[in-house]
Amino acid sequence: MLTREQIRVAREEALTALAGAGVVVRPDEAANLEVSDFGLGDLANTGLQILVYVNTERVCAKELVLRPGQTCPEHMHVGEGTEPGKEETFRCRTGEVWLYVDGEPTPSPRATPARPEHFTVWHEIVLRPGDQHTIMPGTRHWFQAGPEGAIVTEFSTRSTDERDVFTDPEIRRITVVADP
Amino acid sequence: MLTREQIRVAREEALTALAGAGVVVRPDEAANLEVSDFGLGDLANTGLQILVYVNTERVCAKELVLRPGQTCPEHMHVGEGTEPGKEETFRCRTGEVWLYVDGEPTPSPRATPARPEHFTVWHEIVLRPGDQHTIMPGTRHWFQAGPEGAIVTEFSTRSTDERDVFTDPEIRRITVVADP
Repeated sequence: MLTREQIRVAREEALTALAGAGVVVRPDEAANLEVSDFGLGDLANTGLQILVYVNTERVCAKELVLRPGQTCPEHMHVGEGTEPGKEETFRCRTGEVWLYVDGEPTPSPRATPARPEHFTVWHEIVLRPGDQHTIMPGTRHWFQAGPEGAIVTEFSTRSTDERDVFTDPEIRRITVVADP
Repeated sequence: MLTREQIRVAREEALTALAGAGVVVRPDEAANLEVSDFGLGDLANTGLQILVYVNTERVCAKELVLRPGQTCPEHMHVGEGTEPGKEETFRCRTGEVWLYVDGEPTPSPRATPARPEHFTVWHEIVLRPGDQHTIMPGTRHWFQAGPEGAIVTEFSTRSTDERDVFTDPEIRRITVVADP
């Protein structure tokens, strides 16, 4: 749960970061920039600021803006019926992001998530500006921004956030505003 | 048909434009940046410089870099079997781009393509930085950069350039190098 003031501040920070990266954001997009605390009420540690460019039946593209050390918690995208689930490519635009996926656990991972008991995949991929990685449906993953924060562009199939499966049972993907 | 020197110069120009827009391009991407003259041998007027970020079975993303006045000629994306054809969203990142689609012809269109006899749709959409437009499969379209050139980010389903249907019968989508 977030207050309107928390959302306002997080939006301002994200818009400043996007402007610094040369991303032009229209006023209507700025006013609707999504701030998600994943229901944990601890936005500084667990959360994302999201500019959705497009989300049609087949194509989605977003900028994910992360504060320093902010984590997008572990989840995966599952299919429904004949639809195979979301496929996404993360491309680091600014800063550094530490992405974790299924695979051999990295011995000394850089990321230190809050609530580490709800993180089960620890194969680390370091993304710096220009680096990218594609996540196929059904692959557990999570990521944390480095000390400068990060902007990650996401190219994907349709986003159906409400169908995402999170490892942490307390997570709620849709942000609740405390004082709507 | 293009010479290696023409390709080198066009690549350098495109990389300079991308750097100016804050887009980080890896060395391996820079070395492979696509230059297409659409087979007409008149790159200054008809052509594109293309940075492909990703192109999987389901998702594609690119930066399209255009010189001042350069035109991507009229074409459409058709399906094959159960696949409905490419859907694409163009988002203007820098400069100005004039996009033409099916619909009511615009009385005094801004664009002046070479070989205008091969352009049949004239409904104009002006895209400035932050503006975007989605083209559904089977929609004829073309675009020309304004006087400053333009960078357009394309978010789409899989790219199958060889299946594109161009209005101009002389166009060949795959670039031939004169001195390979």
